[in-house]
Amino acid sequence: MSESTKGPHIVRSYDRDLEAIQALIMKMGGLVEAAILESANSLEARDEEQAERVRKGDKAIDALEEQVNEEAARLLALRQPSAGDLRTVLTVMKISANLERVGDYAKNMAKRTGVLLQMAPIEGSSGAIRRMAKAVEIMLKDALDAYIQRDVELAQDVRLRDHEVDQMYNALFREFLTFMMEDPRNITACMHLHFIAKNIERMGDHVTSIAEQVIYLVTGELPEDERPKADRTAIDPTTAQ
Amino acid sequence: MSESTKGPHIVRSYDRDLEAIQALIMKMGGLVEAAILESANSLEARDEEQAERVRKGDKAIDALEEQVNEEAARLLALRQPSAGDLRTVLTVMKISANLERVGDYAKNMAKRTGVLLQMAPIEGSSGAIRRMAKAVEIMLKDALDAYIQRDVELAQDVRLRDHEVDQMYNALFREFLTFMMEDPRNITACMHLHFIAKNIERMGDHVTSIAEQVIYLVTGELPEDERPKADRTAIDPTTAQ
Repeated sequence: MSESTKGPHIVRSYDRDLEAIQALIMKMGGLVEAAILESANSLEARDEEQAERVRKGDKAIDALEEQVNEEAARLLALRQPSAGDLRTVLTVMKISANLERVGDYAKNMAKRTGVLLQMAPIEGSSGAIRRMAKAVEIMLKDALDAYIQRDVELAQDVRLRDHEVDQMYNALFREFLTFMMEDPRNITACMHLHFIAKNIERMGDHVTSIAEQVIYLVTGELPEDERPKADRTAIDPTTAQ
Repeated sequence: MSESTKGPHIVRSYDRDLEAIQALIMKMGGLVEAAILESANSLEARDEEQAERVRKGDKAIDALEEQVNEEAARLLALRQPSAGDLRTVLTVMKISANLERVGDYAKNMAKRTGVLLQMAPIEGSSGAIRRMAKAVEIMLKDALDAYIQRDVELAQDVRLRDHEVDQMYNALFREFLTFMMEDPRNITACMHLHFIAKNIERMGDHVTSIAEQVIYLVTGELPEDERPKADRTAIDPTTAQ
């Protein structure tokens, strides 16, 4: 290991570089949180302009992810970090990849909102979707707080809350099926709404991955217990009847 | 840079380590290709045992991804690669992450197959899904060949073929909507089939990411032209009527 040959100057440079990357992650996190809330709100408020802003705003999130990757690669190449520091850098790259995916889902949601605004609204659905989006946004906020504070307990809590998002999704899935069966004219809108619900459920999975990365970063181990899984509609046909 | 201090012995160790990691990637790729084909086949052949094998087989894929990450982290820490080598290692990690996601989608598909086998089949759907899965499997094979041979042209070709998979998905989406509107008793099965089609479409996106990583690895730049996008149902309501 080259650790012993590194003077304090090099170590400080590494820390400064890492802090700069973490600042990018926080900036990315803020944009992604806003995108989640705004895409859900644009659906509920039937606000096409807001949906359009979310769609366009995703480019800034993508650009930040690229910047994180470049800075991280530069840091790895120049500073040649020790095993522990290396883990931090790899974690940062994984977190930014997860954030980028969540941003993508928000963008997809905003795209579908554009389509849905051309159809008659399905009663009660957009409020339920907003609540689901809000739950995920708070999870994300807490996952990033857990990262900054290296707070394993908070990260564990985020993991557990993903189960509630899954339950919200399962309830919506049943509701949409009912609407569709009641009136075939609801089918197209419900398919799009269902996509949106599924997108939010997947956002929750990515936020959970971030929380798990925090646990890995602090403890050196990924959580062993399988998370109470997830989309029941995929394994239990009775939920889909 | 420590490049100048490295003797030939170190360089060879790095190459040997990298080759070992690439062998893991190829092993992973083989398992993922098989999972794609087998999950689609289990649906068409109504073979619950095969679906079960795909579901259980995903653990081996996940374990390989973890191994790739560990080996890559070890290589980064011990060999402190130069900028070019670093890019290769980071690419390998991204490819394995993409493969893991494709494996996950195959597992999800096999889960839904279990549910669908308890319902009456929807005529013609499982053949269309098998063709879509086959197209993605060939794309994956070619993307991995492009990686091994550093073949930018083949990687570009894979990217373009993703458009065909998207078109297959859009056609299926319309077909499922029609089935649901014709007979509400088809709704539940069509929702699950639609999920499966969407999963395959997303597999195509991840395979395209692998192809783009190959282009980045060889040329140093990600493709600039936006890929002809994708899921038309999200942006054009007429496709969903």
